[in-house]
Amino acid sequence: MQTVEKWGRFEISAPGKTEGNPFTDYTCTATFKGKNETVKVDGFYDGEGVYKARFMPSFEGEYSYEMSGTFGGTVTGSFTVTAPTEGNHGPLRVVNQYHFAYEDTTPYYSVGTTCYAWAHQPEEIHRQTLEELDKGYFNKMRFCVFPKHYLHNFRDPETFPYEGTPMDNSGLSEETFTYEMDISGNNWDFTRFNPEHFRRIERCIVELQERGIEADIIVMHPYDRWGFKSMTAEQDDLYWRYVIARFAAYRNVWWSLANEYDLLFSKKLEDWERYAKILCERDPYNHLRGIHNCMAFYNHSRPWITHASLQRQDLYRHVEYTDEYRTRWGKPIVWDEISYEGNIDMGWGNISGQELTRRFWEAAMRGGYAGHGETFVDEENDILWWSHGGPLHGESPERIRFLHRILSETPGYGLKRGSGSFDETVAVPDGVDFLAFGGGAGYEIHYYGFGRPSFRDFIKPEGKWKAEVIDTWEMTITDAGVHEGKFRIKLPGKEYMAVRLTKVD
Amino acid sequence: MQTVEKWGRFEISAPGKTEGNPFTDYTCTATFKGKNETVKVDGFYDGEGVYKARFMPSFEGEYSYEMSGTFGGTVTGSFTVTAPTEGNHGPLRVVNQYHFAYEDTTPYYSVGTTCYAWAHQPEEIHRQTLEELDKGYFNKMRFCVFPKHYLHNFRDPETFPYEGTPMDNSGLSEETFTYEMDISGNNWDFTRFNPEHFRRIERCIVELQERGIEADIIVMHPYDRWGFKSMTAEQDDLYWRYVIARFAAYRNVWWSLANEYDLLFSKKLEDWERYAKILCERDPYNHLRGIHNCMAFYNHSRPWITHASLQRQDLYRHVEYTDEYRTRWGKPIVWDEISYEGNIDMGWGNISGQELTRRFWEAAMRGGYAGHGETFVDEENDILWWSHGGPLHGESPERIRFLHRILSETPGYGLKRGSGSFDETVAVPDGVDFLAFGGGAGYEIHYYGFGRPSFRDFIKPEGKWKAEVIDTWEMTITDAGVHEGKFRIKLPGKEYMAVRLTKVD
Repeated sequence: MQTVEKWGRFEISAPGKTEGNPFTDYTCTATFKGKNETVKVDGFYDGEGVYKARFMPSFEGEYSYEMSGTFGGTVTGSFTVTAPTEGNHGPLRVVNQYHFAYEDTTPYYSVGTTCYAWAHQPEEIHRQTLEELDKGYFNKMRFCVFPKHYLHNFRDPETFPYEGTPMDNSGLSEETFTYEMDISGNNWDFTRFNPEHFRRIERCIVELQERGIEADIIVMHPYDRWGFKSMTAEQDDLYWRYVIARFAAYRNVWWSLANEYDLLFSKKLEDWERYAKILCERDPYNHLRGIHNCMAFYNHSRPWITHASLQRQDLYRHVEYTDEYRTRWGKPIVWDEISYEGNIDMGWGNISGQELTRRFWEAAMRGGYAGHGETFVDEENDILWWSHGGPLHGESPERIRFLHRILSETPGYGLKRGSGSFDETVAVPDGVDFLAFGGGAGYEIHYYGFGRPSFRDFIKPEGKWKAEVIDTWEMTITDAGVHEGKFRIKLPGKEYMAVRLTKVD
Repeated sequence: MQTVEKWGRFEISAPGKTEGNPFTDYTCTATFKGKNETVKVDGFYDGEGVYKARFMPSFEGEYSYEMSGTFGGTVTGSFTVTAPTEGNHGPLRVVNQYHFAYEDTTPYYSVGTTCYAWAHQPEEIHRQTLEELDKGYFNKMRFCVFPKHYLHNFRDPETFPYEGTPMDNSGLSEETFTYEMDISGNNWDFTRFNPEHFRRIERCIVELQERGIEADIIVMHPYDRWGFKSMTAEQDDLYWRYVIARFAAYRNVWWSLANEYDLLFSKKLEDWERYAKILCERDPYNHLRGIHNCMAFYNHSRPWITHASLQRQDLYRHVEYTDEYRTRWGKPIVWDEISYEGNIDMGWGNISGQELTRRFWEAAMRGGYAGHGETFVDEENDILWWSHGGPLHGESPERIRFLHRILSETPGYGLKRGSGSFDETVAVPDGVDFLAFGGGAGYEIHYYGFGRPSFRDFIKPEGKWKAEVIDTWEMTITDAGVHEGKFRIKLPGKEYMAVRLTKVD
């Protein structure tokens, strides 16, 4: 008897027809039945005469399956779903409106990073990326299915998503870079996928899963010289169905419909809504869904959007709007692009580790989540983490990991900004979480950002409070005694400090 | 024959009646006549039987005067106005809508500071303040006529503005501080000024003038335990007329109607407008006039307001609105409070020298001006520059002086934000100034703030450009060659850098 763990990936594989175009000419669907669920999915052609269908069970126990269609004969069988193994908490869900938890109720505090094109890099760079991910700095990775054409990204990817041949890239350089280039040198069959390309993506998804990292998959993006961003609606839809059929059964998948959707000038609102409809209909697991802006935010009130995936709209005030955007959209706020730690020429990629860490804390203290990226000039190899992965150079990753540790100690599921009048600095656990978990009122983080107070006074009419001084940059937590009534906590007069107060008994 | 230099202060002094209340019972006015102007001013009672009238001539040549009124006999005479001596450029005026120049057309780039209560401190502190001012960091000082009651400000001032006795201050402390205290222990005659108090202010005005510093006089303010903020309309008006009669003839005076006018809860809009009317009617020299907010901005479109004197309304984005506020009000933008360098507990007084310097540059690059203040905890003496003056401790003053040096090299009268699309970083001379001064287009400062580019590319289709790299923190200007067409300027990948481009023939 075959077995698979709960929230694991069960795959049916069967030979089928190869005449004509197996990607479009035949049907292939599969149904998986257990005591508590019946799930129907699209199968897909994986090349070399093989059709597959994938399934992620949500319950333990006995299941049967049947794969059928015009691709070939009907395949049936059964399997047993066992308990999840350690580290498998299931897919992510929104909890208490503004936060996330795995399906087994384990809280998840998002600390993401971005390596847009890491799936398309040579093995040596890929290995370096995994070494950095092993250090546990991040628990979400944003990356693209399609290859990337942009400054620092003129090399061809290791594989292409379609059968065909790419335009000549030998004349490309920073000097001649433009979005509006002649792409007529490409020769693709947009009805025939290259399964090897998608297997590369799947390897990445699994490598992330093994490290407890969510795969925030960017399905479409505007950085393109191959015509992948300007396919017809029919071609787009074929692509979306293929992507969903292949990736949905991986529990750590998030769907990012696009990066900078508003730079995909050939797409209209109805296109994005149509992709979303395909996704809602064909992803039976309801993985998290978002869509990321360059300038104008998408309307994050749309019901299919599970969380607001944001890029800053202003150079100076951005994550500081987190609490306002929570109110506006009533959803988790995830800042996926808030300028990267680095030293490139562009303002979106040259802030300090201190400033990026501050932005992470500001987002977190207001009940949202921030994302990392790194863009240091690499004159030798032109390898920048933001796009390729490779080695990290910055100072923020360690601090982001430290913030995650602090967040993981939150009673309940997450923080929200405090309501003290004139007090911009207090974050307290989200009220709802709080009551739900019966932790009792009594957990506050007072974060001072670029302020440098030498002390702060507190008034706590009720109970005794344990105080700790947190140096968010030096990553230290220092006991500052137990207090009651009005009391003063001394601070070092440095930037990036916080005071944590926890009510005792 | 008496002489006075142009824009100097000419004073008539004469004995008069002392019966009753000389501050209110008698009239005293004076008229000064020259070939090009006839100026009528209010005289004032200076105590000890002496009445005075003051005049600031705007032209060279022969003048006659006559002081008369019920105070005593008529006094007449004549004097000669000579050319201004070195360093005397006259009072300040608004030029080219957004900037300032002295009346002799010398440009003035405002780099202000604030020592609210320096006029009311003991001699030793006063001396220390002057020593700091001698270093040439600042060219404007904001300070109050009335003494100050606030945290760190519980000592009585050296003098009070009225005859009478103050409430007991022995029980005052940070612990018991409140705005809503019992002030019944005061006993003042609001119709009898204490001339000594005003002479202290005048000494300060002169000391500033001697150092090339404008005296931004705060006539009213809310930090009060003596009842000076809640006098009757009649008492207020008497005070305003006395202040104008005494101070208007000092060429370096600016009128700040109030600090944080919106915290003076007993005053209404019509009160502020009435004070402004008194000022416009009785200050014959039209010194600069502003009114400073705590939360809500005053309506700076009011015609009597010469420049917008602002306190930030947001913790994160403030001076970055300079160009928008220029457009909104069509007047110079002067940020008089944008958080101080220091380490006190409050967010308005604990930013770093780097951050305050950045705010100065941001304001300047967008065509406005910023103000300094310093609030370091002083456990021994509780002397904080922001209020008392005394010794400076911070790192920003030197950098502010350096910025002033750079601004002084602007062709024409001042900068405005550049109009390059997507380019937030360019400041260019205000177009109008430019043409007016025929410097020819060709002066740009590209400022990168907290960005850390390792290089920047420039495209200059016309002419040759001299490039300099400015380190605004280290205060260095490094030659980066002469370039044309498309060229790259290398930068150190640090925060707070700028590139200056000047067209050369």
